[in-house]
This record gives sequence, structure tokens and C-alpha cells, in this order.
Amino acid sequence: MSPRPAHTVGWLAQPHHDGSGRYVSDLTPRLGGTVDVLLRVPLECDVETVHVRTSPDGEQQFAAARLVRTTDTDAWWSATLTCHNPVTNYRFLLGGGPTRYAWLNGTGLHARDVPDASDFRLVAHDSPPPAWARGAVVYQIFPDRFARSRAADRREQPAWAVPAQWGDPVDTRPGVIAQQFYGGDLDGVVEHLDHLESLGVDVVYFTPFFPARSNHRYDAASFTAVDPLLGGDAALRRLTKAAHARGMKVMGDFTTNHTGDAHEWFVTASGPGGRRTPERDYYIWEDGDYVGWLGVRSLPKLNHLNQQLRTLLFERADGVVRKWLGRSGGLDGWRVDVANMTGRWRGTDVNHDVARQMRDAMGRHAPEALLVGEHVHDYTVDVPGDGWHGVMNYAGFCKPVWTWLRDAEGDPNFLGAPVPVPLLDAGAVVETMRDFTSRIPWQSLVSSFNLVGSHDATRVRTLVGGDGRGVDVAAGLLFTLPSMPMLTYGDEIGMEGAFGEDGRRPMPWNEQHWDTRILEVYRSLIAARRGSVALREGGLRWVHADGDAIVFLRETADETALVHVARAAHAPITLDARHLPGIADGRPLHGPRPRVGTRSVTLSASGPGARVWAWRPTDGGATHGRRRRR
Amino acid sequence: MSPRPAHTVGWLAQPHHDGSGRYVSDLTPRLGGTVDVLLRVPLECDVETVHVRTSPDGEQQFAAARLVRTTDTDAWWSATLTCHNPVTNYRFLLGGGPTRYAWLNGTGLHARDVPDASDFRLVAHDSPPPAWARGAVVYQIFPDRFARSRAADRREQPAWAVPAQWGDPVDTRPGVIAQQFYGGDLDGVVEHLDHLESLGVDVVYFTPFFPARSNHRYDAASFTAVDPLLGGDAALRRLTKAAHARGMKVMGDFTTNHTGDAHEWFVTASGPGGRRTPERDYYIWEDGDYVGWLGVRSLPKLNHLNQQLRTLLFERADGVVRKWLGRSGGLDGWRVDVANMTGRWRGTDVNHDVARQMRDAMGRHAPEALLVGEHVHDYTVDVPGDGWHGVMNYAGFCKPVWTWLRDAEGDPNFLGAPVPVPLLDAGAVVETMRDFTSRIPWQSLVSSFNLVGSHDATRVRTLVGGDGRGVDVAAGLLFTLPSMPMLTYGDEIGMEGAFGEDGRRPMPWNEQHWDTRILEVYRSLIAARRGSVALREGGLRWVHADGDAIVFLRETADETALVHVARAAHAPITLDARHLPGIADGRPLHGPRPRVGTRSVTLSASGPGARVWAWRPTDGGATHGRRRRR
Repeated sequence: MSPRPAHTVGWLAQPHHDGSGRYVSDLTPRLGGTVDVLLRVPLECDVETVHVRTSPDGEQQFAAARLVRTTDTDAWWSATLTCHNPVTNYRFLLGGGPTRYAWLNGTGLHARDVPDASDFRLVAHDSPPPAWARGAVVYQIFPDRFARSRAADRREQPAWAVPAQWGDPVDTRPGVIAQQFYGGDLDGVVEHLDHLESLGVDVVYFTPFFPARSNHRYDAASFTAVDPLLGGDAALRRLTKAAHARGMKVMGDFTTNHTGDAHEWFVTASGPGGRRTPERDYYIWEDGDYVGWLGVRSLPKLNHLNQQLRTLLFERADGVVRKWLGRSGGLDGWRVDVANMTGRWRGTDVNHDVARQMRDAMGRHAPEALLVGEHVHDYTVDVPGDGWHGVMNYAGFCKPVWTWLRDAEGDPNFLGAPVPVPLLDAGAVVETMRDFTSRIPWQSLVSSFNLVGSHDATRVRTLVGGDGRGVDVAAGLLFTLPSMPMLTYGDEIGMEGAFGEDGRRPMPWNEQHWDTRILEVYRSLIAARRGSVALREGGLRWVHADGDAIVFLRETADETALVHVARAAHAPITLDARHLPGIADGRPLHGPRPRVGTRSVTLSASGPGARVWAWRPTDGGATHGRRRRR
Repeated sequence: MSPRPAHTVGWLAQPHHDGSGRYVSDLTPRLGGTVDVLLRVPLECDVETVHVRTSPDGEQQFAAARLVRTTDTDAWWSATLTCHNPVTNYRFLLGGGPTRYAWLNGTGLHARDVPDASDFRLVAHDSPPPAWARGAVVYQIFPDRFARSRAADRREQPAWAVPAQWGDPVDTRPGVIAQQFYGGDLDGVVEHLDHLESLGVDVVYFTPFFPARSNHRYDAASFTAVDPLLGGDAALRRLTKAAHARGMKVMGDFTTNHTGDAHEWFVTASGPGGRRTPERDYYIWEDGDYVGWLGVRSLPKLNHLNQQLRTLLFERADGVVRKWLGRSGGLDGWRVDVANMTGRWRGTDVNHDVARQMRDAMGRHAPEALLVGEHVHDYTVDVPGDGWHGVMNYAGFCKPVWTWLRDAEGDPNFLGAPVPVPLLDAGAVVETMRDFTSRIPWQSLVSSFNLVGSHDATRVRTLVGGDGRGVDVAAGLLFTLPSMPMLTYGDEIGMEGAFGEDGRRPMPWNEQHWDTRILEVYRSLIAARRGSVALREGGLRWVHADGDAIVFLRETADETALVHVARAAHAPITLDARHLPGIADGRPLHGPRPRVGTRSVTLSASGPGARVWAWRPTDGGATHGRRRRR
């Protein structure tokens, strides 16, 4: 066994573990409970001893793993871990002769000591993510731009609005960018649920629906009513009912970090006599003036040191947890805007407290609801497993995908960075993905939104440029990796946009404006995901990442799915068929079939694209069986 | 500029920044203050733009750096950062053409995105480490074994003791190992301060001196008196007075995690009627029984959820901060035992709270005192910069040094690990050091104890085996890297010991038992450190790490020191003399002189050893100047 740099090919013959149900007996253990963990070690690794290293109460500890099964190709080791603390981090120490020594953690094999950051993790915190979220496909809707019902025609335009016709181009000039108003509404969405169902969407997630004074509505004027311009509370009820009837979940978007300056609390706090009101302290004031999000005057920042505010938001019957979630409110979860800045200001940092309180309140009042935090850069230290169930996975998915698939001729900028996104090879792309995702619990990763763009970022079609086949590759990764894949309305028809606001175009319901080739790719990949337990819930074994190609396996005990994505034609990749037992009897889920011989499997690509192939593994490797957990 | 793997040679021609005063204008900034940071970019890197990325309040932000100076070899860039939060993490984004993109953080250059963990950090927390600690050399004494004054002969042996004569071998049999009693005392130390002064020691650190029922005294029976067997309070006063008179500091060892079962609090808590005493809740009880450290019955674990306990320890006049530190107590700091487990038990984790409270109390009552936590594995997440000033740097120094210098024939075990420490090349060694040390603030690193062994670990002389010249290499690293180098009494004379207790041998004061060659190496290296501001306070630029050799620079604006350590003979290393301006006029601080030509500097080694060479840099690179900080 020789540890290799993470970007090197040849992973199929390396030891493997991940946090999925293939290797871990209980994905939502309880404090004090035990969990069995399995390790697969290809026989050619010549491993003689395996220990599992944990650090209960902060002190490292080693337990010997047991060799439980040997197949034609693999030795399977097992160890039983106790969830002594809410988070149990662990990694494997593989030994042989006197100086042989290798760690296996979430970034692979290491011949030297490594920090605990990429350890595997069992999480026993209360209120774990709901089971429905695991692997679900999310469709993001910007309500003003998705669809407009007839009722919208009868509504009066607000004073702040710059009215636009559905066919008008987006106007991104300062002063207009946030005011241009197309008048999309929730009943418009209801009318187009067929489209979502035909796509295979599991969850509809809306950017804010509270009343506001902008088209994005991140400047909420209230948290207790749906904007009448969207149809009001009744429209949301119609929508959630219609979605639920089709088996879809519905999520909203809530700003924990700030309100709008027209919010009822802020009006009270900043009005005459405001200094003496309880609402005054809901906001942060310095030298008599309030603090705005990144200095934006219309977005006064909330003061989460004020316990009354937190009670109001998270505990009261008309707060955002109890009023909107679960049986009473109909919503199935919140995406939290600017989650990463919430509760942080100068010497104050109660960010994790706020996330924990919101999750805890959800656990009590709406235990089937999901909580996902926005985070546009390094989320890893903000996801210890006790607050948000997951995050928007820009850092560990979106950005690395961009660095692989960006148009070489373009100039893509990620959220205000001062230089363009670089163009990198697959090795660096996968290394980046592993570096970020290995630092959060598997439970959090699979409850996070993977995405290749959003209402805040360049549209994927514009990002990849050219003939658009790069979208196939991006979608190939999006719908096959562990996470909740999120697409933004219009991605599936090739909508363009050079940056966030430019991509918030009204959805063209005339199909002549659709890229139906891209739509078929989305439909096929989402159908593949829905039809494969391995893609939805399986573990992740990287197989190859080099230059223009990425290959990986998704695995459950009953199914293995092989995913091969290529951004360009590349030399054939040959895999040892012994490590893919059962592949000869596989079925195609998407794209062309691989060339399967008795001794090897060959993956070729003549251009950009993705293929997914699935089979029932026949090697008889160890499983957790049906034994009851203690 | 092409980012290279961290273990590759050629760093001298790479951009550089570190947290030292060479590159940072203020090492102890205040919240809200500004700090200038400098970046050195060799001209051959062809960097066109430099941005500094920070994340105030959790949102990433970029600021353009200014090109402030160009020398014959380097471009110097500068940026002014505001300490908006108590910790300001930052890294550099170097750009050129449209797809050129490289991050510089504490682990070097990266062509892909990396998490924030190894960002550089400015720390503006209150009560920063005292200036005297920066670069100071620490001498660890195990009081029972260092020296015995005549007064010890008159003391009665305690009932628990198994008496030993000074010349007896250490007895490590169970039941005797912690009871064998040599009777060393504090006046014995006073009598031998000449030895410490001749070595060049700055700080004497004692393992516990509180009364107990073992030779190691980690089972304290009281925190309010010095063990009479050591001479009592009066002896400590004599000792601190004598040490201070020689310009030395004195540190003690305090167990925040537990007391002994003979401690007055525990006797009350566990005695008749104990359930109704306040002391009961000072400890952790489960099912009517107390919790011991790692299950050890004699070490009941303290319950830091009890605020009264914490007040007693840290705030009261007879607590360990006010009674023992500063003017009242005479001590200059505490090393905290089992700091990593303190306040952690099952679902409770108030570890950082306890560290913050102790530091805060020290800041109020003894602002010149130092607080160093024990941590035997990954300390990085436990050192955010607001609690302990530093740690015992096992993970980022001791263990990597062991993996380079361990006797190939030996079987060294690190603190109970199930397999021996591996033998690695210098590349992996330096990569490990950078991986750990880059994750804590520079302020914390230079307040941490680097060590190649301790009273808990294999003696370095035993670790390296053979003729002992490996000790020269270990000491060469110990006394030249940023940190507070700590040696354990007897290391300097080649004392042996296969594991912690085995190495706790009585110090032989008959010099016939000394390895005087090793003593001269220690004296020379410590003298080099004392005579070089670069070694004491300079930044750290890695130059070469491959196989058998490690080369690095320590830099202040006024002095550069080049350190070259080799564990074996190796092929000459050639460095570009242009990047070492002034080296021709250097002076030797330790070991043989390098071969300095007009174009290149050649470093050879015919066997294990270390060399240190220092000079005044003549390149006229940018400095912070004398400008007042805003």
C-alpha cells in the first residue's frame, strides 16, 4: 500500500470508507448509541492491521478493527464506535510492517499525520435532517420571474416598481436592477407544476415571498404575511397543497441576518420615540445610526444578542418556524439567506447559537422540516452538525465545477471576486471538492444543495459557452454526486445570464425559446437519479480524476452506479473489472454504455458528456445486515 | 509562477508572507485597529496583481494590495487590514493573465481554492501573550527527580511513597511506577540554577508542585499550598526570587481537568453527607459515582458547568490565578494539564469557555503571565486565539521531528499509539509541520512550547539511538524554529528513557554521567538563539525539505539566519545567492560555515548535524518603518 497524492488515478485499488449507509450502520445515531463502521481494503494493499482513531472528550483513542470478511478482491474490516459525544470524529490507521503507516480520512490516504479536519464524522445531535431530503432534487424559483397568473393582471403595481412585460429583457442598470417588476406570482407556479413534475423535481424552493420593496424581496417588510403581489397567504396555501398532492416539498427563503428598512419592527425602531421601543434593540446601532448588511441602507442588520428577537423569530406562534413550517404553515423547510453573517458583528459572534436555536425550534415544532444555510465561501467551520442541516455548496461543488467547465474564452467572475475563475484540470477539481466536503459530516453533505449556479451567479449555459454541451457535463456532476442537487428555474432550458441579476430572466413559456436538447439531458439525468438508489443515497468512491475526465462510483449494498463525465474527448480510461463485480450485467441510466470486457472496463469520450451505468454488485462484500442497533 | 506541491524544493523563488514582525506591522493589534501586511514576491514569479482576501463578519472580501517597493530580486506588496473582528483571517490572491490564479496561505501556494483553515491570522483578543515569552527557552523540571537539597533528608517520607536513593534506577512496575520517591525538592533546584543559567534557559517550568499522593503530583490534594515535601510555599518563594534575580521566569503546572481523590473538595464531596455540599457539584457524577480522567479512580474530573467552581479557581484571591501568579504569587504562568479534555464530557463542551475565562482572569490579575495548554494531538481547533496563549506543540513539531529522526532500528511509540511512529522523509516532515502550525495564529505559535520529548514521552537520546548525533539534529530544529523551545531536564546531558516514566530519571549531578558533547551542542544552539534576533523573533521561510535535509530562513528586517539541518550525509544543495543578499558577510552562530560564492550558496553535510549562519540583509526590502499605527 503506497499512499498517493489525491489527484492521482488508481483509487479503485485503494482502501475506502465514507459516511453513507454502505459503510455506516446508522446515519442518525443517538448520543450514547453505537454505530458499526465498515472499511473496504483491496487485497493488493496488503494491510495487516486496522485501527480506528477517535477523540472522545478531546483525547485521542485507538480501537482495533476486526477483519469480518474476505472476498475475491477485498478484505472488509469493521469496528463498533460509541457516540460518546454529539460528534464522533474518526479515521482509520492502516498498518503493516514496522514502519508502514497510513491514515485514511475523507481526503484519502496519507503517509503522514494529518489534522482532524477531514476525519469522518458520526453526528448524534438532536433534530437530524428529515429523511425526505436525502438525495432530493431541488428547483429554485425567483417568484417575480417564473410565471404570472391571470390574477396578476388585476393587481395594482407598487410605487417602487418599474413595470416590465414578460418578454422584456432584464434591465441591470443601477436604480432599476432591483425595481424592474415582471409580476410573476405563486399561482403562476401552481399553473406550471406539470413542468416541474415532468422534470422530476422533488422540492420547490422559492427566494423570498414576504412583502418588500424590491423584485428580489430580500428586504422583507414583514415575516408574517405572503406578499399580496404574489397572491398572499392564500396563494401559498394553494401552492403547498398542489405541490404536496404531487409529492413535492416546498421551501421558503428567510433572512436571519437582516430585514428591509420597511419592516414593521424597523419602522418602529427608527421612528419617533423609537429609541424607547423594544424593537430598537432588534437591530444593531452604532453612534445612533443602524448597521446595514454590507453597508446597504435598505437592509438593517438584526441583533441576535437580543433574546426577545430570537424568541419572536423562532419560538412564538407567529414566528417563522411555527407560523410557516409543518402542518400549520405548509412549508417543508427554510433556506436561510446570508446565514454565514448572521449574528456576527465586530466582537460579537453568536452565529452558531442562532443556527442551533432555529434548528432546535424546528425540531420541536416541525421535525420534518429542513434547514439549509446560504454560504458562498468556506462553510466548513460553520457546519459542525448541530445547526443548519446543510448549506448551499458553492465552495465544495459549484466553484470547482466552474473551474473545470468555464468557457476558456469567457471571463467568469464568482460573486465579486477581483479576478476570473481559473481553468483547472479534473485532478484539482476533485481535490477541491474533497477538501471542502470532507470537512463536514456526511449527514450535512447530503442535506446540502449542490448547484452549478443560482439567482446570484452566472447561468451555467453562459458559463460553459460554446455549443452548450458543457451543460451536459455540469448536469452530469450535479445530479450524480451526494447532496440535494439544486437547479435554478430556466437552467433546464438553457437560460443564459452573465451574472446573478442578468440571469433572473422571465421564464419563456413558449417552447420555441427552449433548448430542448438540454431539457432532455436534465430530464434523463433526474430520471436516472430517481431510478437509482445508489445515486440518491449511495456512498462515493472516486475512481479517476485527471485532465478532462472524472469517474466515480456511488454504492449501496444493492446497487453500484458508475458515473463518467468528460469535458472533452480523451484517451480511453481502463479500469480493472475485478473491482467492479457485476458490471457486465449492468443497465444504462444515462448516456452511452461503457465497453465491458472480462478483465477490464474501458471508458472513452469523443466529446463533452456524461454516462451513468448501474448494476447489482456480486462480490458479496460485508454489510451491516438486519441486526438491530443497540 | 507555478504553484508546486509543498514538499518540493525551490521555495526561495516563491512569494512569501508569515505572521512575524518582518511582514506584519503589529503583532498584538486591538479590535478596530489597522495592521499593515507585507508580501515578498520574487520577480521571476511574474505576478501582476495582488489582492488580500479577508472575511469580516463571515463574508469574504477582497482588497487590492499596493506595490510599494521593487528591489533587484523582489517586488514588495502591502495592504492595510482592519481588525474588524477579534480574529482577522487573510490570504493573498496572486494574479496575472486571465486564467492565472494562485492563493498564498500558511501552507504555501495553491492553484485551486482552499478552505480558510490555513489562512494567516491577526488576533486582536484581549490579554495577548506577554512579550517576554516570545522566543524564550523553557526548561522542564520534574521536581521529584531534578535535585534534592539537604533539607530533604530531614523530611519524613509519606505513607504512599516507595523510597529510592538518587542513584537507583527508575522502577516502572505497576504499583510502584507512581510511588517511587526520590525526594527532589525546590531548594534543590535553587542550588542548581547555575546549571540552567549556563545553559541559557529563560523559563523554568515545573510539573506540579501541589501536595499529592504520587511522585508526579498530577493528583493534587490542594491548589492552595506547595507540597511540604518540596519545601512548601517558602521554598517556592525562594525559588522564584532566585530565578527572577537571574532574569529567569518560572511557570507551574495546573490541572484544570481534575484533582486528586485526596483533594479537600473531593474529600468533602464524597464523604458522609457529601451529596448536600457545594463541593459535590464541582465534580461529575453518573449513577451516584464520580467520573475519573480516562477512568482513573484517583483523578476525579472537575465539572466546569459549575460556575462557583470556576469562580473559585479563576477569580477568588486564593484561586490559582490570583494566589500564585504575578506579584502576589511569584509565578510567571501556568502550563495547563489535560487542557484538551477540560470541560468536555459527553454532551457538554465548555472547553473554550474555561480557557477564555482563565486567560481573562490572568489578564486582569497578572497581565504579564503566560498560559500554555497541554494538547497531545490536533490542537488546531482548540487554539482560536482567545484562550490559551499557546500549546505543547506535539502535533506540529514533536511528532514530525520523531518521524524524521527516529532510530530505524527502534520501535518508538507515541503516547499509546497502537503502531510505531513511521520513518519519513524531510518533505513529509515539513509538510506536517506546516499543516498543523498554519492553522493557528502566529501569535499562538510563538507562545507554544516546541519540544522533542517531555516527561510523558521517549527521551530524544533514546529516540534517535546510535551514536547520539541525531540529538544534534533534533536540537538544531528545536532551538531555531518559531516557538518557545522546551527541553526536559537531562535532555542536555543525553539522559535516556524508552517512554515517559522511564525517562523520569534522577538528574545525575556527577558530570561523569553526562554526555558533554551533547551538552556543548545544547549550549551552542541556545547561545545562538539568544544572540540572534532573527532566531528569537523572526519570520520563517522554508527553503528546502527533501530526504535528509531541511533548510529554512528566519528573518527580521535587520537580520537573516539560515538554518540547515541534515539527518545524514547528502548531496550538496545549491541556493541562488541573489535571494540571500548579504550572506557573504555573515557570521557563524552554530556549526560549520556554508560555502558562499558570488552566484550560489552550497550546503553540504557529511553526516547528521545542524548549522546556523546569520547576516544583515542588504536588499533594502520594504519594511514597516517607524510610522505610528493608527
